Amino acid sequence: MKQVEHIGIAVKDLNVSNDLFTKLLGVSPFKQEEVFSEGVITSFFQVGQTKIELLEGTHADSPISKFIEKKGEGIHHIAFEVSNIYEEMDRLKNEGFTLLNEVPKDGADNKLVCFLHPKGTNSVLIELCQSKNSPV
Amino acid sequence: MKQVEHIGIAVKDLNVSNDLFTKLLGVSPFKQEEVFSEGVITSFFQVGQTKIELLEGTHADSPISKFIEKKGEGIHHIAFEVSNIYEEMDRLKNEGFTLLNEVPKDGADNKLVCFLHPKGTNSVLIELCQSKNSPV
Repeated sequence: MKQVEHIGIAVKDLNVSNDLFTKLLGVSPFKQEEVFSEGVITSFFQVGQTKIELLEGTHADSPISKFIEKKGEGIHHIAFEVSNIYEEMDRLKNEGFTLLNEVPKDGADNKLVCFLHPKGTNSVLIELCQSKNSPV
Repeated sequence: MKQVEHIGIAVKDLNVSNDLFTKLLGVSPFKQEEVFSEGVITSFFQVGQTKIELLEGTHADSPISKFIEKKGEGIHHIAFEVSNIYEEMDRLKNEGFTLLNEVPKDGADNKLVCFLHPKGTNSVLIELCQSKNSPV
């Protein structure tokens, strides 16, 4: 794991939370993006090496909408940047972790991503991500 | 806010979780420390610029034990490093955030810390921290 690439936070209203986090962090979001496959609209703030990613579900079946319905707003996942997502997925599978997707899938911010089952990680939803621009 | 200094994760058994996060992150914790005033024992892993801090309550009244009792294990807080904690506390108070302590208090890892009330931050518990070794 190279670094904490971002921390994902589930919010009910992205516009309201964009204002709130702009005040909190002292910087504005540098981009907003909809990920249709995940049913989310996201905004990103840069703080040092790490991004804060706010996530609002775009429909009731979105994983983010379901998360908020069950647990309320709050921290949703931690994403670690890896050099080679295929190797890291193999390594973690061999260590006994459960992958939520067996092949990397498209995530926000031009990344390949894979999630680990939180039952194996102290209830922390972990994302591995690798920029599609990185050489594998 | 300079960077995400650490992410705090509440766990039931620090020894079990130290092993789990060593496998997950591919590095061992670089230190373990008890913070008597908070009733926690903590361990730290370095990943890039950011630390992962595991927290186990040392008694039933510890905030971490109560958090786990209520919500289960999982991500407890995000800590942002600031250059001057006094100035940042003033700035955030003026922006309408509620501080959980009115003066900085001693935290783990030789830091001055202040927490913000999660009701004002989309249910995310935010910690501000400044190394006691940094010049103010």
